[in-house]
Amino acid sequence: MSDARLLSALSSLSHVAKQLEVPPPAPAELDANCVKLNMNENPFPLPVVVREAAIAAFERHYLYPEDDNVGLREAAASAYGLSADQVIAGNGSSELLGLIYKAFLAPGDAVAMMSPGFSFNRKLAMLHEAQFLEIGWGKDHSLPTHQLLFGPAHDAKFVVLANPNNPTGTFVPIADIERLVAQSDRLIVLDEAYVDFAPDNALRLVNRYSNILLLRTFSKSYATAGLRVGFGHPELIGRLRTMQNLFNMNVIGHAVGMSIIEHRAAFEEHHRHIMLERERTSVALSKLGFTVLPSHANFLLARVPEGRDGAWWQAALQKQNVLVAFFPENGLENFIRITIGTERQMDVFLSNVSRISSSSN
Amino acid sequence: MSDARLLSALSSLSHVAKQLEVPPPAPAELDANCVKLNMNENPFPLPVVVREAAIAAFERHYLYPEDDNVGLREAAASAYGLSADQVIAGNGSSELLGLIYKAFLAPGDAVAMMSPGFSFNRKLAMLHEAQFLEIGWGKDHSLPTHQLLFGPAHDAKFVVLANPNNPTGTFVPIADIERLVAQSDRLIVLDEAYVDFAPDNALRLVNRYSNILLLRTFSKSYATAGLRVGFGHPELIGRLRTMQNLFNMNVIGHAVGMSIIEHRAAFEEHHRHIMLERERTSVALSKLGFTVLPSHANFLLARVPEGRDGAWWQAALQKQNVLVAFFPENGLENFIRITIGTERQMDVFLSNVSRISSSSN
Repeated sequence: MSDARLLSALSSLSHVAKQLEVPPPAPAELDANCVKLNMNENPFPLPVVVREAAIAAFERHYLYPEDDNVGLREAAASAYGLSADQVIAGNGSSELLGLIYKAFLAPGDAVAMMSPGFSFNRKLAMLHEAQFLEIGWGKDHSLPTHQLLFGPAHDAKFVVLANPNNPTGTFVPIADIERLVAQSDRLIVLDEAYVDFAPDNALRLVNRYSNILLLRTFSKSYATAGLRVGFGHPELIGRLRTMQNLFNMNVIGHAVGMSIIEHRAAFEEHHRHIMLERERTSVALSKLGFTVLPSHANFLLARVPEGRDGAWWQAALQKQNVLVAFFPENGLENFIRITIGTERQMDVFLSNVSRISSSSN
Repeated sequence: MSDARLLSALSSLSHVAKQLEVPPPAPAELDANCVKLNMNENPFPLPVVVREAAIAAFERHYLYPEDDNVGLREAAASAYGLSADQVIAGNGSSELLGLIYKAFLAPGDAVAMMSPGFSFNRKLAMLHEAQFLEIGWGKDHSLPTHQLLFGPAHDAKFVVLANPNNPTGTFVPIADIERLVAQSDRLIVLDEAYVDFAPDNALRLVNRYSNILLLRTFSKSYATAGLRVGFGHPELIGRLRTMQNLFNMNVIGHAVGMSIIEHRAAFEEHHRHIMLERERTSVALSKLGFTVLPSHANFLLARVPEGRDGAWWQAALQKQNVLVAFFPENGLENFIRITIGTERQMDVFLSNVSRISSSSN
């Protein structure tokens, strides 16, 4: 192999691609018996009718999927009171976020994100050579509207925020978000990934304002990590659709999405279960010395008791085969994030926390 | 809804996004009974063992798929005599092509494609504000190596070519491709989507040269339109992996890919069937006055008999519920492209061509 030839190929990489590190080696495989509470997955089985739709769709494995996801977009539009040209369907909301970055950002532009937030935004900003402005939440995790309108974020092409927010689980009243959208002449990208565990949602803003794009996902509340839809003004949505990859969703994802929309009432019992377990787990953690943020999502962010940090707790739980998330950045060194799973999973989690607490005192 | 707010959001679109047209309305739905020979799909059912792998994978619907597709990359590497860091797995080779464009092209750069070729490349070049150079094939669809090395394509960041080529079906000897790769100091992107229907392939070049990226797909030869893998030098592949969307493939795609790689011998009978039907269809079409290009893919490109053009034939066949492809550009106005399907599908196609021929004389 000629090194000169490799150097030549590497030298023709774009400015951004030259700066990227080659990815690290693969992480160790998961123990199949672990209690996995680290990625906000929803452990409940899909309703039988949705499973049947998936199996039936598999028969179309040899055909290309519908381009532009017409059927799924129509089903979502009809379920949510929109028109199909207000809907784009993505292979994960990360794909839709990537399209938004591509459609709005030129090198040197700025994008603002409420922080802490979804860290993939930082990477997207880097790939688009954009400035990444992290705007901190206000007192009690409120929306700092004045700062977003008149502070450094004023020059951002768009603002990304999640409601309920991840990893905090906190929820901002929709009226506050409406005030921001109404007073801003910029685009607001609102990620409602966890909204099915919250008391309200911003869907009604989509038909009222043309400067909002709303992201929804089936990954968390509908137990299918990997299928998401976004809503917004047809003029903006249309451009995103035009920039999208060919056949971006496969036949099974498409069919499962349509079936979930049709049968979404069947998931309500699981949502109620998760909200009840969230309350039970929060109360139990508080008794064990944790400070738990009020959560409207399918996870809890908890400050660990004094004396140890979040990394220590994550490692101690992992030794017991219980996985939780830890974020070394954004002042979250003393927190762990716990996904709400089944009753049994939460029992295992809580008894391990209790045992670790006693033995580390 | 405020028009001023919409205009403001539209004015913040990037230069490229501003030029895009909002997509056209959805096409009419397909007749379920049509003989679909227009998209090079492979109509054979998957082996039972692959189906079982897919159904088993469906049980993991609630978990995020493996990021960076480690298992599938390792399986492909082992099957093809490469290391896993020479492999990237994509949600369609269109996704991998998009990553290559993103990694190598800055606005104003040039990219060259052998033409006629895969027209999605033209759109990718437009989205990256790159010049798109179309280089015509040489005499008898040979590779114009001298022109690629010293002609206008000399300034392109990379050259894209497909072998067998689409839509012509023609095949260039691997020695000719090796000569181009060896003499060029630029990247050569070789799309081998149809290689399982051809007499040879370029896999051996991947370990010999660092300036080649090879694309393979399961869509055509393995009856699963929507799963593809690409091979190349680890330094280049690593950068593409770093730029990729999170969780770009779902659990079922991943499992089906791994199972296909393990059981790929089970597909050989279908490949033989397609190659035999290709020969039979080609001979029959020639007798009916068509001029058929020698094909090494799962389709035929045929010049229609004088007096009518390709659009006319496509429409006449569509009236009989038989779908074939027609390309209005690149001097292909008098051609149709016919995917090779099952024996029964080809019987229906040929009897319709025969009937249309007699009645139009």
